[in-house]
Amino acid sequence: MHSFDQLSKQFIEKFSTDHFPKQPSSLYEPNRYFLQLGGKRVRPVMCLMGNELFDEINKDAWQVATAIELFHNFTLIHDDIMDKAPLRRGMETVHTKFGESTALLAGDVMLVAAYDYLNKISGKYLFAILHLFNKTAREVCEGQQLDMDFESSKEVKMDDYLHMISLKTSVLLASSLKMGAILGGAGERNQDLLYEFGRKLGLAFQVQDDYLDAFGDPEKFGKQVGGDIKSNKKTFLLIHALETASAEQKKQLVTLMNGISEHKVEHMLQIFKECKVGEWANELKEKFIEEAFNHLEDVAVLSRRKEPLKQLALFLTQRQN
Amino acid sequence: MHSFDQLSKQFIEKFSTDHFPKQPSSLYEPNRYFLQLGGKRVRPVMCLMGNELFDEINKDAWQVATAIELFHNFTLIHDDIMDKAPLRRGMETVHTKFGESTALLAGDVMLVAAYDYLNKISGKYLFAILHLFNKTAREVCEGQQLDMDFESSKEVKMDDYLHMISLKTSVLLASSLKMGAILGGAGERNQDLLYEFGRKLGLAFQVQDDYLDAFGDPEKFGKQVGGDIKSNKKTFLLIHALETASAEQKKQLVTLMNGISEHKVEHMLQIFKECKVGEWANELKEKFIEEAFNHLEDVAVLSRRKEPLKQLALFLTQRQN
Repeated sequence: MHSFDQLSKQFIEKFSTDHFPKQPSSLYEPNRYFLQLGGKRVRPVMCLMGNELFDEINKDAWQVATAIELFHNFTLIHDDIMDKAPLRRGMETVHTKFGESTALLAGDVMLVAAYDYLNKISGKYLFAILHLFNKTAREVCEGQQLDMDFESSKEVKMDDYLHMISLKTSVLLASSLKMGAILGGAGERNQDLLYEFGRKLGLAFQVQDDYLDAFGDPEKFGKQVGGDIKSNKKTFLLIHALETASAEQKKQLVTLMNGISEHKVEHMLQIFKECKVGEWANELKEKFIEEAFNHLEDVAVLSRRKEPLKQLALFLTQRQN
Repeated sequence: MHSFDQLSKQFIEKFSTDHFPKQPSSLYEPNRYFLQLGGKRVRPVMCLMGNELFDEINKDAWQVATAIELFHNFTLIHDDIMDKAPLRRGMETVHTKFGESTALLAGDVMLVAAYDYLNKISGKYLFAILHLFNKTAREVCEGQQLDMDFESSKEVKMDDYLHMISLKTSVLLASSLKMGAILGGAGERNQDLLYEFGRKLGLAFQVQDDYLDAFGDPEKFGKQVGGDIKSNKKTFLLIHALETASAEQKKQLVTLMNGISEHKVEHMLQIFKECKVGEWANELKEKFIEEAFNHLEDVAVLSRRKEPLKQLALFLTQRQN
């Protein structure tokens, strides 16, 4: 068994090969640039861990892990265009550096490259992996669309937000684990339990993400605290605050959201605190983690094989940045 | 054996099913809208014809044909964004009607849907079909990138233009035929001959396209004649004119291209005529058709099975609109 850190190191080394032809460089240089911006490569490593939960990591798992990471980067390149994001990891996004049209095409060809890696695996697993990969890809697109829809919605219900986050963030984590499990020869019930573990973990991860944006320690948090509040982003916190605030507090929230007060972040955080949004978020996160761990518990393999996944779960949900 | 028209009718009927989930409609409605704009569905029918050249059309060929048509529509949606095209087939493009972000995502999910149809075919053929599909998808993206690169190039060489057109237009026609041939159980040599038939046909088709834009009969040609000339688009005609014009004619061409003369189209056409660009284009087209037919001739099946493909080739390259 390997820890997340060990597998991450191995994956990053293997992944540092060139995934694209040399020409036309105007198309592939943007992709090379984006991939070398780095990252923790959480999703492909989850595929490897899902595989190792049941068996030694096999060759196919490395191919699928690579496909997953390329897919994830395709979504990032296109999301950055849609979000008009100038920076990612402190560096220029692809569309900022190379133009929108090239970023669009570079993303397209990144997705095709992902499918090319999938086609390197054993015929025995190809149908099942492709099936899950396609379903996940479709859902991630749906999640991104819903996220954009919510930007212009006046009110977003908690259940709808949960559904969107599940699609946009959780299913790729869940599928990464499940693809590894499929390649590890896991039975269907074990595959599904691991999928649900990953999905709940993704929800806990997002609660933590939303929490840190509002209540993170500015010294530890990499980004500016309060970014979501400034941009009126519907988050777990804001939706809960709007749902539980008194009539007077709700009026204040709406006024702050529609206004341009320079104390907006401070005042909204004050109401969040009055509504105990922080405590609620921590409880919600713990609930998702507990549900995730219950699913993992039920996976029918020796308990000690699950240790690396438990470590990963805590790492992803207890982080301060 | 079936004619192109018969197969086109059958395909259009089968294709008129709903390829997408109901929700979120904000994502899938744009795709439904775009698909119902119609079209001759040339590429999927070529897949069916490639199949029928060797055997009765099988179930898998219908799935692959559907995947090809969805892929083609994915490229159209994204190309329209890049080209900032307001209209297609006289109707609003997806990004004009639904916004750029939604068009981007709708295209993405259209591509994923294409892969989902590929995953419905027999495991026996899945690897070979996916391999060719991925290669083609990559090449089509490369062709589009080169096309964009050429827009800002001062000079484009004929060989580079041919390479770009081969990637952007021809390989999908060629692959559509070849995928059908693979599913028809054709041997490798027959597959490759058919591919080259399709590729040369694609080049002839593009010569005709460029020719009609300049010399088409305004009564028969659907679009405004001279559109390419107005926008200084590098076409077979312009590149040849620049390569063969006298020093004085070349100077006039460059002046017209850089200027805003209201007689630009008229004057450029005059120089095209002096350089006999139209005659040259017709000869080039005939050369490509001949080469295409030679490849088809060499395919080892009974001559009468090739009739529908010959009819199609003439239809695609002799059209007046």
